[in-house]
Amino acid sequence: MIFDRERTGHMDQYITEHTERFMGELARLVAVPTVAAQHRGVEEGARLTAALLETYGYTAEILSVEGGNPVVVAGARAGAGASRKARPGGGRAPVLLFYNHYDVQPAEPVELWDSDPFTLTRRGDRWFGRGVSDDKGHIISRLLALEAVKSAWGGELPLDVKFVIEGEEEVGSLHMPAFVHAHRERLAADACIWEFGGVDHNGRPQEVLGLRGICYVELSVKTADHDAHSGLGGSIFPNAAWRLVWALASLKGPDERIRIPHHADHVRSPDSRDLELLAAMPEEADDLRTRYGVTSFLKGMTGGVELRREQVMVPTCTICGLSSGYEGPGSKTVLPAVARAKVDFRLVPDQTPEEVLANLRAHLDAGGFADVEITQLGGDRPARTDPDHHFIRLALDAARDAYGLEPVVGPMSGGSGPAHPFTDELGLPVTMCGIGYPGGSVHAPNEHIVLQHFVDGTRHAARIVDAFALAS
Amino acid sequence: MIFDRERTGHMDQYITEHTERFMGELARLVAVPTVAAQHRGVEEGARLTAALLETYGYTAEILSVEGGNPVVVAGARAGAGASRKARPGGGRAPVLLFYNHYDVQPAEPVELWDSDPFTLTRRGDRWFGRGVSDDKGHIISRLLALEAVKSAWGGELPLDVKFVIEGEEEVGSLHMPAFVHAHRERLAADACIWEFGGVDHNGRPQEVLGLRGICYVELSVKTADHDAHSGLGGSIFPNAAWRLVWALASLKGPDERIRIPHHADHVRSPDSRDLELLAAMPEEADDLRTRYGVTSFLKGMTGGVELRREQVMVPTCTICGLSSGYEGPGSKTVLPAVARAKVDFRLVPDQTPEEVLANLRAHLDAGGFADVEITQLGGDRPARTDPDHHFIRLALDAARDAYGLEPVVGPMSGGSGPAHPFTDELGLPVTMCGIGYPGGSVHAPNEHIVLQHFVDGTRHAARIVDAFALAS
Repeated sequence: MIFDRERTGHMDQYITEHTERFMGELARLVAVPTVAAQHRGVEEGARLTAALLETYGYTAEILSVEGGNPVVVAGARAGAGASRKARPGGGRAPVLLFYNHYDVQPAEPVELWDSDPFTLTRRGDRWFGRGVSDDKGHIISRLLALEAVKSAWGGELPLDVKFVIEGEEEVGSLHMPAFVHAHRERLAADACIWEFGGVDHNGRPQEVLGLRGICYVELSVKTADHDAHSGLGGSIFPNAAWRLVWALASLKGPDERIRIPHHADHVRSPDSRDLELLAAMPEEADDLRTRYGVTSFLKGMTGGVELRREQVMVPTCTICGLSSGYEGPGSKTVLPAVARAKVDFRLVPDQTPEEVLANLRAHLDAGGFADVEITQLGGDRPARTDPDHHFIRLALDAARDAYGLEPVVGPMSGGSGPAHPFTDELGLPVTMCGIGYPGGSVHAPNEHIVLQHFVDGTRHAARIVDAFALAS
Repeated sequence: MIFDRERTGHMDQYITEHTERFMGELARLVAVPTVAAQHRGVEEGARLTAALLETYGYTAEILSVEGGNPVVVAGARAGAGASRKARPGGGRAPVLLFYNHYDVQPAEPVELWDSDPFTLTRRGDRWFGRGVSDDKGHIISRLLALEAVKSAWGGELPLDVKFVIEGEEEVGSLHMPAFVHAHRERLAADACIWEFGGVDHNGRPQEVLGLRGICYVELSVKTADHDAHSGLGGSIFPNAAWRLVWALASLKGPDERIRIPHHADHVRSPDSRDLELLAAMPEEADDLRTRYGVTSFLKGMTGGVELRREQVMVPTCTICGLSSGYEGPGSKTVLPAVARAKVDFRLVPDQTPEEVLANLRAHLDAGGFADVEITQLGGDRPARTDPDHHFIRLALDAARDAYGLEPVVGPMSGGSGPAHPFTDELGLPVTMCGIGYPGGSVHAPNEHIVLQHFVDGTRHAARIVDAFALAS
């Protein structure tokens, strides 16, 4: 694909000139602590997001969700002049859907941040704050990219644009499948740009063609009304912490094999195209080890296709948190009445959160752990996009042009998200593009973005929009 | 044993008349948050305790302990007049040693207290505050009992009194064995009154003739420099929480059997006298179930000797706390780099904390858990006193006289304490007596004592002192 140098030059310049202004918009979004897990700032975050979209010419609406956080839906039609220019022979303007989210991960542990997590703070060429990358910075980058496209097309959009910006992505997007189903006509589109993306640790743009699913649960046990003195009850009272430990140990053993019967019944093995893509990916093993201070990988893996396949194309069962009894310094001789664990199952095609949950319940019951309660805190089905779809080829060409580098293409991401309703309900090809990088401490203290990544990711998005307006 | 009605009447009246004043002293002790586990208030607590003892005529000294909290050692000699009266034929005055501690358990969870834990607060016939029972109230009760004895003996002590008041009982008294050994001549005595005691849930005085030992450890695992996104690392990075869960599950299974090889090698079975004492104890099963809201006991036990034996005369392995990763509300998709558990082993004769620790290390290493670090946070050997020792008979007679009820005699307590150096190094018979009751929320929020228990426990202590002065 050959890009129009006049328009790309115009867009790139526009992006450079207006980045500072859009960082001001980002600061306003970051200042609202939209922590879905803690039920903070959600309504205000939705209102601010809708207002921002309206400022840039989109018709925005806040749709409430029964039992969930509101979703901002917005859109704008292609301008008549730009449309005629893009499609001299006439025809319907293509529709591009942007999926993003206004909620963020908790800022805890707050004491490990070098600046206030909810104050956008620049240090050198970096901007710090909760959500600057995941995902408020991406919302801002999309808006800037679209403004750049408009500017290059004579002040009009050359295609129809839709936004769906939800507020529960960081707590599992439990309501997104039903929401998309209910609004499938309103959200109908030809292609979708996903909420994240960016460069790998070598600065190469990344394209990821799928997302693992997730089933996130809290397991809890209550064995008594209140804690007992451990000297009194140690050998006669049930202990919630022990019950939880034994239940957890029954889920997965030190061999890393998930022991829940039927858990892997619907796991589809990677096909030859997946393996080809995995083989073409760069080696990241040393970088991963260094970055996390991990001495070795699980199961004796050292790198290569084996490690990359294991990282993204197998089901996982991860303890994300444990809590029971006395957790302070020193000792306290207490027998806990309550214990809790957060457990995250990542799913690959064709697993579903529903079957994972049912199998988990059956397994605990069969193992004598009917006393372990399961609360589902999140669930997404896995989703894939065909690596050879024309929209993906267009997005990869756009990446080559924006970055001047060959993109790294992965068949799946290790992470999750509610892409399944978009790929399967709406039938859309989904591409990733964006402003992140592996060192950005997403989900961790000192989340940040780098100026150049923001500019490059925005230029990439602008090229996708520009090329897609012409491609249909 | 017949008690001198004139002296017991005098003592009882003294105690009633001076209880209010001694509650004022207790308020001063409670106000210093001597939380050994949190390294708070220890020096100030020791100074205040020593000053209090000096106020009542004891020579007190604060002895520092290498790597530990200071110990207050105090004493007073028998007065010449009282001595002549107690032993008309002459002879050495007997020496009674009081063991107590000025440190307290952490107040957490503070939000569950109905009044500030470090402000002695009266509501009705109860006094609330951290340490009012365990153990500051006992220090105050001992002092008042001795004042009452002095008053009944013409202003003089009829025997020699020694105090040893340590500051690490709630964190395992790690330095007490070496301290007692180093100061064995200074602490030499004929009998010892232990730090606690009181009535059972029916108001009957309790005598317990031994303490289980303890080995309290923190198990910790670190698998990386920092937490990872669970989507990134779930199937390739070691997970500290999983490592900990598997290590813990290897220690004890749902059958409650401790799986550490050689753990029970030196367990002495209860003898016929122990079983006789256990059989004579009242049934507490229903009370225990109700009080803690526990639906059933472990191993199908329902009560009787079986339950009482299991409660105090077997080794235990109790998880007291678990902590790892994200513990807040909702979900966070994080792969923890660090995990910690607090584990409390209760020991019976002739187990030792040293062998428990060595066997635990060997077991973890053999099971592939060399990465699990063990930090010992407390250790006491188990200790016993002969149920038929004349000092115990005297203490039981004193209980009958003070309470007007037959005491409940247990061969062992489920709890622990550093009694071993006193029973074995100093060769002392040890009796319990005191002001506590099972509903007093010791080690829990809203720790409290009841006025009548304080008065009765103090009268009991005064009778023991009075009778022991005459018994030698």
